[in-house]
Amino acid sequence: MADGRLVIGTRRYSSWSLRGWLPVRLAGLDVEIQALRLAGGGKTVALKTLSPNGCAPYLEHKGIAVWDSLAIAEYCAELAPALWPQARAARAHARSITAEMHAGFRAVRSALPMNLGRVNRPLAAGLEEDTLRDIARIDAIWTDTRNRFGAEGPYLFGATFCNADAAFAPVVSRFASYAVPCLSDVSHAYMRAVQEHALMREWAADAAREPQDWQLEMYESLS
Amino acid sequence: MADGRLVIGTRRYSSWSLRGWLPVRLAGLDVEIQALRLAGGGKTVALKTLSPNGCAPYLEHKGIAVWDSLAIAEYCAELAPALWPQARAARAHARSITAEMHAGFRAVRSALPMNLGRVNRPLAAGLEEDTLRDIARIDAIWTDTRNRFGAEGPYLFGATFCNADAAFAPVVSRFASYAVPCLSDVSHAYMRAVQEHALMREWAADAAREPQDWQLEMYESLS
Repeated sequence: MADGRLVIGTRRYSSWSLRGWLPVRLAGLDVEIQALRLAGGGKTVALKTLSPNGCAPYLEHKGIAVWDSLAIAEYCAELAPALWPQARAARAHARSITAEMHAGFRAVRSALPMNLGRVNRPLAAGLEEDTLRDIARIDAIWTDTRNRFGAEGPYLFGATFCNADAAFAPVVSRFASYAVPCLSDVSHAYMRAVQEHALMREWAADAAREPQDWQLEMYESLS
Repeated sequence: MADGRLVIGTRRYSSWSLRGWLPVRLAGLDVEIQALRLAGGGKTVALKTLSPNGCAPYLEHKGIAVWDSLAIAEYCAELAPALWPQARAARAHARSITAEMHAGFRAVRSALPMNLGRVNRPLAAGLEEDTLRDIARIDAIWTDTRNRFGAEGPYLFGATFCNADAAFAPVVSRFASYAVPCLSDVSHAYMRAVQEHALMREWAADAAREPQDWQLEMYESLS
C-alpha cells in the first residue's frame, strides 16, 4: 500500500510533470504514479476534477495535497533536505534560479516545446530574438552556477542532482531536441550529465512505452 | 550599517517588488531599500547591470544574492519560520497556492496591472473570458483556504500574514483597483484585511510620495 499518488501528464511532452516527478523520486516517496494523456495546454477533463488547479503534476502524500511542481519540490526537500544545497548562499542561489525558471522563459517554452521523440533537429524557421535572449540567459545561469558552485560534480551544485537541476531538466531536453546553438562548453557538459542521469533515462524509457495515440499532432508537426 | 539592500521598482506599479518587500519586512531584515524607476516590462537599464536577471526585486543580505520574489520569500522564511504555516499540510497548501500564483494568472496580470493610484474603477471595456477564469480561480483559492485554514484570524492561514498572503497582496490591490465583480464574501473580507495591514498601508504611503515622473503613461491610460 503506497503512501499516495503522483498524477502526471504525457511523459513525452509534459515538462511540468517531469519537474514534479524528479523531486518525488529523488526524495524516495512511496507513491503510485498515475499518468494521464494531456490535451493541449496541459489540462484534461480528468485533471480538471482531480487536481485543485486542473493541472499536472499533482501529489497526494500521506493525506497532504500538493500541486504545482515548485511546491512539490519544496515539499520533497522538507523530507529529503539534500534536494537543496546545504550552504545558505548556495541554497539561496539555487532557489533564485529555480524560481526564475518557474515564472519565466516563456519564449523558450512556447517556441521549443519539450518533445522527447525529437532528437537534435533545429527548427526549420530558425529562432526568434526573444527565444535567443532566453537561451542566452539560461546558458549564463548554467555556466555561472557550475563555475561558482559545481566543482564537486557534474550538476549545477556539484555531486548531487538537486531541485535546481530538476527545474532545468526539461530545458536540457528542449535544447537537445532542437539543437540549440551558442551554448558554452560548460553548458554542453552539464546537459550531457543531466541526460545521462538514471532518472532521466528512466523517464525517457517510460515515455517511449506510452501509447501511440498519446502523441499530440500539434507538437509533432513542428518543423 | 545595514546588512545589505533590497532593490525594488516603482511602488505604484511593481507587483513583483511588493511580493519581495513584504517578506523582507515581515522577517525584519535590516536592509536598505533602493527604489528604481521601472521602465515598461519591469526592466531598467540600471537593473540590467545590477541584478542577475535584470529584474526587481533583488536582495543582497550578508553577502548573499537572492532574486525573484519567491526565492526571496523562501530565504526570509528560513530566517523567520512564521512566514510559512507551522503544520506540514497547511505549509504544503500555502506553497502550492503561492507557486500557482508565481507561474500563473497571466490574464489577470496583463489585463489588470497593479496601479495603487486607481481606486474602485472597472475597466470600461469589461473583462475578457480568460481574465474572468483567472479571477474565479483566485476567488476559489482564497475562499477555500480561508475556510479550511483561516479560522484563527483574517489572513489565508489565520492570524499571521504569511508568504502566501504576500504572494496574493498585489492581486488584492488589482481586484480593488478595477472593482472586480463576482467575488465571495469570504474573499471580500480577506481583501479588506490585507489592505488594512500596516505594511500594505506603509507601501501605499511610500508609493504616494514617489516622484510624479515615475508614473507610467501606459498604465495610467487604461480606461
